Amino acid sequence: MDMSAARERLVVIGGDAAGMSAASQARRLKGPDELEIVAFERGHFTSYSACGIPYWVGGDVSAPEELIARTPEEHRARDIDLRMRTEVTEIDVAGGRVRARDVDSGAESWTSYDKLVIATGARPIRPDMPGADAPGVHGVQTLDDGQALLDSLARTRGRRAVVVGAGYIGVEMAEALINRGYEVTAVNRGSEPMSTLDPDMGRLVHEAMEGLGITMVNNTQVTKVLTGEDGRVRAVATQDAEYPADVVVLGIGVRPETTLAVAAGLPLGAHHGLLTDLAMRVRGHENIWAGGDCVEVLDLVSGQERHIALGTHANKHGQVIGTNIGGGYATFPGVVGTAVSKVCDLEIARTGLREKDARRAGLQFEAVTIESTSRAGYYPNASLMTVKMLAERRTGRLLGVQIVGREGAGKRVDIAAVALTACMTVEQMTTLDLGYAPPFSPVWDPVLVAARKASRAVQQRP
Amino acid sequence: MDMSAARERLVVIGGDAAGMSAASQARRLKGPDELEIVAFERGHFTSYSACGIPYWVGGDVSAPEELIARTPEEHRARDIDLRMRTEVTEIDVAGGRVRARDVDSGAESWTSYDKLVIATGARPIRPDMPGADAPGVHGVQTLDDGQALLDSLARTRGRRAVVVGAGYIGVEMAEALINRGYEVTAVNRGSEPMSTLDPDMGRLVHEAMEGLGITMVNNTQVTKVLTGEDGRVRAVATQDAEYPADVVVLGIGVRPETTLAVAAGLPLGAHHGLLTDLAMRVRGHENIWAGGDCVEVLDLVSGQERHIALGTHANKHGQVIGTNIGGGYATFPGVVGTAVSKVCDLEIARTGLREKDARRAGLQFEAVTIESTSRAGYYPNASLMTVKMLAERRTGRLLGVQIVGREGAGKRVDIAAVALTACMTVEQMTTLDLGYAPPFSPVWDPVLVAARKASRAVQQRP
Repeated sequence: MDMSAARERLVVIGGDAAGMSAASQARRLKGPDELEIVAFERGHFTSYSACGIPYWVGGDVSAPEELIARTPEEHRARDIDLRMRTEVTEIDVAGGRVRARDVDSGAESWTSYDKLVIATGARPIRPDMPGADAPGVHGVQTLDDGQALLDSLARTRGRRAVVVGAGYIGVEMAEALINRGYEVTAVNRGSEPMSTLDPDMGRLVHEAMEGLGITMVNNTQVTKVLTGEDGRVRAVATQDAEYPADVVVLGIGVRPETTLAVAAGLPLGAHHGLLTDLAMRVRGHENIWAGGDCVEVLDLVSGQERHIALGTHANKHGQVIGTNIGGGYATFPGVVGTAVSKVCDLEIARTGLREKDARRAGLQFEAVTIESTSRAGYYPNASLMTVKMLAERRTGRLLGVQIVGREGAGKRVDIAAVALTACMTVEQMTTLDLGYAPPFSPVWDPVLVAARKASRAVQQRP
Repeated sequence: MDMSAARERLVVIGGDAAGMSAASQARRLKGPDELEIVAFERGHFTSYSACGIPYWVGGDVSAPEELIARTPEEHRARDIDLRMRTEVTEIDVAGGRVRARDVDSGAESWTSYDKLVIATGARPIRPDMPGADAPGVHGVQTLDDGQALLDSLARTRGRRAVVVGAGYIGVEMAEALINRGYEVTAVNRGSEPMSTLDPDMGRLVHEAMEGLGITMVNNTQVTKVLTGEDGRVRAVATQDAEYPADVVVLGIGVRPETTLAVAAGLPLGAHHGLLTDLAMRVRGHENIWAGGDCVEVLDLVSGQERHIALGTHANKHGQVIGTNIGGGYATFPGVVGTAVSKVCDLEIARTGLREKDARRAGLQFEAVTIESTSRAGYYPNASLMTVKMLAERRTGRLLGVQIVGREGAGKRVDIAAVALTACMTVEQMTTLDLGYAPPFSPVWDPVLVAARKASRAVQQRP
């Protein structure tokens, strides 16, 4: 009997979280006799934590190797034919094959697939302005970017850093540079930092950043990078002003890397990400899956598609894809939009909809804000936190929560993340049986205090 | 028109969390013209945090006043006729009145009520053994108890303490005494400390306590308190051994204080607590409510009644009772059994059912245990935590979670508490959108890692 006839080939494009999680999970379920797995990665690294780069730059993590969950050798030891520094340049959907190019030699060849996983990730948004490519201007998307930034910092005697953007990457890089002893200016297009929060909550982040010595410039856009005689960055210019800079970090977000998918005619959504079904199959394509930063995900609260580049989703997508390819069954039902971050000791968290998201989705709502403490007020190191909560009018359904505070604030958002997933009302939330003891919470957890206030607001305006 | 005819009188028995929350909330909704409120408290304090006593004894909280949320004067300023040091000695249900005795003068009088709230709390279980009342043997139920213990510690030169019991109070008091520089021995009837956990998880607490220098003696029972010539405790004796003690703290739990209710013929459950409906009305009694440590609550996971003495429940009960008495509508649907505690830097949390609870409820289940870290493994101060998860066979419904670890372990149980309330399956939990960033969580939160393992276990044995 010829077993090789039954052997299928899985091709994976992209060797980071989504791609290699899918490959690993498929391998767990199907041995090499049943499934051949070929994975292409154009860079030097596999399965690394891009989210960890700010902490490496800031000195909390000592070496890039610590950010690597699994090396190419470890993947190969599990019978995954991993081809590093090999970039896929075309997907031939009709022919069921991909063309790949060896980055170093330039040699190209075709590889056929029975099943394909697209995990091409995201690419940083680079501002289209003069000087954006000057030495001393850095993105922080890949480990190579992180190393280049660290080398640049080592070469520069000046201590002035400008961070462009004040979202997650921006505030984390501001922290990293503060930790390295830099004078940091953050230049931000929005009215407040952390545009993933409502501006009233972003204001708290703004104040805390200034308290940390970070100069926060809002409502402005960098128009130009100015360079010195050596060609290296010396300042950034906005419409109104110039900010001297020995180093510039770009943290203005990412967009799905879907060049290959577009060329192959695969379906994209409004945010330029691939569209999949709940099993993470590319819509309309029985044998192509996609996951990670290159796809759009369903927002379970608004019912609309979103693009969220986040390692935890990429890992879950990979797990779901690998299970399905391995002959099991799994789905990724969607997200509620949870994110947590910190800048020094300030913790910032959000889940669900902001006011503008709720309005855009056509929802009417009440928004309330409360202040409470992380522990019983009398317990040492109880710190203030602010919780904002949105609830739908009439139904009272929880729509979103934002939290800004110190230790113990950030992960409290998980309570709301689960409640959103379960479509709970704020009234139901008021009696949630949350962990209470003086070192952990006031007798009414801050999330419960917010739920009580939101519940009253909904009742008062039925 | 005679308005006074319409004025009702609410009588509250017990001036701590449940009683005074009920009184305050009723007052918020109904002014003194509509509702007269009389509250009786036999002790010296109102609205205080008994849960905070170990931290006061341990020195984390400097004065008992810090544990008082609201003083008698503050309650009176809100038109609550609060009668301190006045003990209710009888409830005359048929006559709609209570008899109260001034503790100091012994004078007794009857007060009629239109509505009654019973919030008599719990009383500590005192072991029935010789010497249990000797000087140097202390409970820690009330602020007076805490002061007596502190006075006793100040009087004693010896540094050997024995804690009887190793549940929440026991481990918290062990921590308090370690913090005060005592040599602590904990004597425990069960096979491991923290019998609210399964023994395999209690074992982790045991090891950590020993690591802190606490001598842990399990599977044994104190039979006698031995006293010296001065009449003061000098040791405790078990069946097998004697443990020298300059001070003994009893932390062997509490039971509902329902003496009055029993005498009045009100309905009690199997755990000797009052039985109420979901609006916290005593069953069969339209105008009597009860809440806090003297009632039984519905366990939403097992469908059975339980007795849980916990300030957070008492506050919620009071809120519900006060809302209903004030003319609003609120219910307390029940608990899932969440509790969190710590001993020094070890955090201990549980929610839902233990293995023996699940068996007792007639449920078949899978139990899994995983180890993970509080933060991304590469992030500074990532610490190990152990998560045990129980899921029902066939349905995959989450039944319970236990967590033992360091910083960041305890409040993670809230994720499971909300999931239990929402009757989620462990499979559903595997895709929960929990907050992820390296300082807060690994890319798979420990609770998700446990959910994945539990989900596989359920699938493998359908």
